[in-house]
Amino acid sequence: MKIKITLALLLTGFILLGQEDKEMVKNMFHTSLSNGMSYSWLDHLSNEIGGRLSGSANAQKAVEYTQAELMKLGLDKVWLQPVMVPKWVRGEKETGYFTSEGKQYDLNLCALGGSVATPVNGVNGPVIEVQGLDELRALGEEKVKGKIVFFNRPMEETLIHTFQAYGGCVDQRYAGAMEAGKLGAIGVVVRSMNLRLDDFPHTGTMSYGDLPDNQRIPSAAISTNDAEKLSGMLKQDSSLELAFKQSCRVYDDVESYNVIGEITGAEFPDEFIIVGGHLDSWDLGDGSHDDGAGVVQSMEVVRLMKLNQKRPKRSLRVVLFMNEENGLRGGKKYAEVAKMKDEVHIMALESDSGGFTPRGFSFDCSDEEFEQIKGWEPLFKPYLIHYFEKGGSGADIGPLKTEGMVLAGLRPDSQRYFDHHHASNDTFDAVNKRELELGAATMASLIYLYDKYGTKKKVTLPVKN
Amino acid sequence: MKIKITLALLLTGFILLGQEDKEMVKNMFHTSLSNGMSYSWLDHLSNEIGGRLSGSANAQKAVEYTQAELMKLGLDKVWLQPVMVPKWVRGEKETGYFTSEGKQYDLNLCALGGSVATPVNGVNGPVIEVQGLDELRALGEEKVKGKIVFFNRPMEETLIHTFQAYGGCVDQRYAGAMEAGKLGAIGVVVRSMNLRLDDFPHTGTMSYGDLPDNQRIPSAAISTNDAEKLSGMLKQDSSLELAFKQSCRVYDDVESYNVIGEITGAEFPDEFIIVGGHLDSWDLGDGSHDDGAGVVQSMEVVRLMKLNQKRPKRSLRVVLFMNEENGLRGGKKYAEVAKMKDEVHIMALESDSGGFTPRGFSFDCSDEEFEQIKGWEPLFKPYLIHYFEKGGSGADIGPLKTEGMVLAGLRPDSQRYFDHHHASNDTFDAVNKRELELGAATMASLIYLYDKYGTKKKVTLPVKN
Repeated sequence: MKIKITLALLLTGFILLGQEDKEMVKNMFHTSLSNGMSYSWLDHLSNEIGGRLSGSANAQKAVEYTQAELMKLGLDKVWLQPVMVPKWVRGEKETGYFTSEGKQYDLNLCALGGSVATPVNGVNGPVIEVQGLDELRALGEEKVKGKIVFFNRPMEETLIHTFQAYGGCVDQRYAGAMEAGKLGAIGVVVRSMNLRLDDFPHTGTMSYGDLPDNQRIPSAAISTNDAEKLSGMLKQDSSLELAFKQSCRVYDDVESYNVIGEITGAEFPDEFIIVGGHLDSWDLGDGSHDDGAGVVQSMEVVRLMKLNQKRPKRSLRVVLFMNEENGLRGGKKYAEVAKMKDEVHIMALESDSGGFTPRGFSFDCSDEEFEQIKGWEPLFKPYLIHYFEKGGSGADIGPLKTEGMVLAGLRPDSQRYFDHHHASNDTFDAVNKRELELGAATMASLIYLYDKYGTKKKVTLPVKN
Repeated sequence: MKIKITLALLLTGFILLGQEDKEMVKNMFHTSLSNGMSYSWLDHLSNEIGGRLSGSANAQKAVEYTQAELMKLGLDKVWLQPVMVPKWVRGEKETGYFTSEGKQYDLNLCALGGSVATPVNGVNGPVIEVQGLDELRALGEEKVKGKIVFFNRPMEETLIHTFQAYGGCVDQRYAGAMEAGKLGAIGVVVRSMNLRLDDFPHTGTMSYGDLPDNQRIPSAAISTNDAEKLSGMLKQDSSLELAFKQSCRVYDDVESYNVIGEITGAEFPDEFIIVGGHLDSWDLGDGSHDDGAGVVQSMEVVRLMKLNQKRPKRSLRVVLFMNEENGLRGGKKYAEVAKMKDEVHIMALESDSGGFTPRGFSFDCSDEEFEQIKGWEPLFKPYLIHYFEKGGSGADIGPLKTEGMVLAGLRPDSQRYFDHHHASNDTFDAVNKRELELGAATMASLIYLYDKYGTKKKVTLPVKN
């Protein structure tokens, strides 16, 4: 009899527990959809401030704006974490064209982030098309020297996960100029990382590694339509010439900031959970999807936690990282300071895949942690959140990774992401209010659950001196 | 020993079977994404033809175009099925405004489909705002007579399934004028069925039931922004006056067509599976999402089946229905003819929820059929298709419903759908190529599986005379 009653009580307990979680998740979604702040914050970031390249005046405005908004939320602490960031400036609007049989075809072209400028009058030369770095290396110096190398491997359209297609191509953009420079090329143009055929050139970071200055050649992206056109024309006229001009340059590093807000945990204040996105963006659009969305969703998470739960068990921080796009300095700095202070981070969640309809998360964690999280899937099902898989998380939280920690990335629907990524059409109008808000609620629900149930790992707090 | 070998063979068989299905589903997705026709068909329907209101010249062009394109696919039969459809014509661009304290505020307004015109000089009168039909009826004739009734209940933003939010509101649009007319109102304006705040008025069908002509009052939709503005101004000035003018009219019914293509089944030619969408659309945009997407996806399904499987076991028909929007005559006609001919339809699938990223299907069928279909879920998982639930299917295939049949509806992501639904921004640029193609492949995969494994019901073919 006693056993039966105990069992009944236990079961009731489980059901009530389930009920509480269900209610809380529902509150997160309802509040985000009917009384959310994320969309109006994004409106300000995108339309009042605009593109927020590291080291720019706009990046500083974004720091000040988000700090002020976090302060309005009544968090326990809000502060700026200084970090030195690179300052690359695009300069004048780039121009480019190719000429075949006396006719000039203008190109939609933009400098890649970190590229050197062309000489004042531009570069001009014959073009050699390659599908990737290996093909380039196989050609060797003889066939490359004095030419403009055109990297034209498209993103693989049959891949369902568009980030995989991006991963399969982006080496051309990142290392194309470094490799071509070694072989004596005079410039590089890269097909934009875009699954759609359109007229937008997509920028993004590139690197020369430790190449000496005299081998550093200018590199630019051209639109997918232009890549198709150029490739087609090259088949008819292999001696056509391409010219482009850009005046970008690198300045000395400047001081900038990660913006951090904290609600101190009620039970385990020394265990930290963080949620974040990156505050910097490329300069062509206003960075609404990349990563304005992640910034405002992360801010909304702490707001929703505060509104719906008053105080979490663990300390919850929102971290708005600076300089993800061209240096990752903010992510590295946050991890460095956390380590220095012996702060125990048990979980980090990043949103940096656009503000589209959320589908779920991918997790970088142990099997044991993953099993616990998978157990929460049914709570998400009414909200059409179904994707819980192991995989990567986010660039900014990567440096924080320690044994036993859970790193997670929000996974929104990715089909439209690369239509806008790093291009001038990454703008506010491309973000749907409800999709953005659903993402924030999805993140808040995971944070609520992880805060409540905590890590499966035994937490060893550092000895305080 | 024998038993073991048999078992081993059986298991091998199952694995091979699973492998074949996996390969076929993969082919559907790969072909649709890399070599699909749906997007270019939609380009033509949307940009070369445009809005295709029943009875219009454009609707006829769409009939001819899709018939010609289906014939190019080398199906066994392609034909037109005549059907008489209503012909309602919008006439001149509508105008509307309200006046408060001498100031005029213009309205973004459009006539609802089926509405009568206003008198030549428009209607003009005081406004009474209600949240729905019940509130209107409770007010009674005294408070309604001589006024313009303003239905302003918004779609419920906390609902995740936006079609539920639509269902919870659309009675105002459909029956608002009928109910207000009975109480002596002189006109009706309805808040657009749109979750977003913007300037687009959304049309849609309405009905006067069997109301006598003298009680039929003009009804129009206003944009959500205007609804908010009007509601706000009414709180300050309850005597403000609203005026609108529209010249729409109903003509005699005209002949139009369902467009049908068939691949005759190799094993069970007398069992029919159909896949379809509706060819007509509203007239404000070009009907890309509603339902150009469903039309071209359905055409792509038969194309993919032909390319990847040569010949299905059962007879597969693509049916492009006419007049879903304001009459459902095409759907009714198809069912009527099928019944007359004693055709056994075992399954029907409709795509009429937009060309957005597909999430799955909802099914109107027996538990036994549903269990079989649920068993195929793992085949869809790599394509992020996760939603298999019982529920509604599609308006056009509804009349075909018979005991034991499976009716299914494609369920794309619905968050953006009502931003465009029945409005002038339902245009080609709002459709993403990949999302459209993923939808077609999702549909083709289900059709392939259902054709292969067939109905769980014992099929009794009609006795041929």
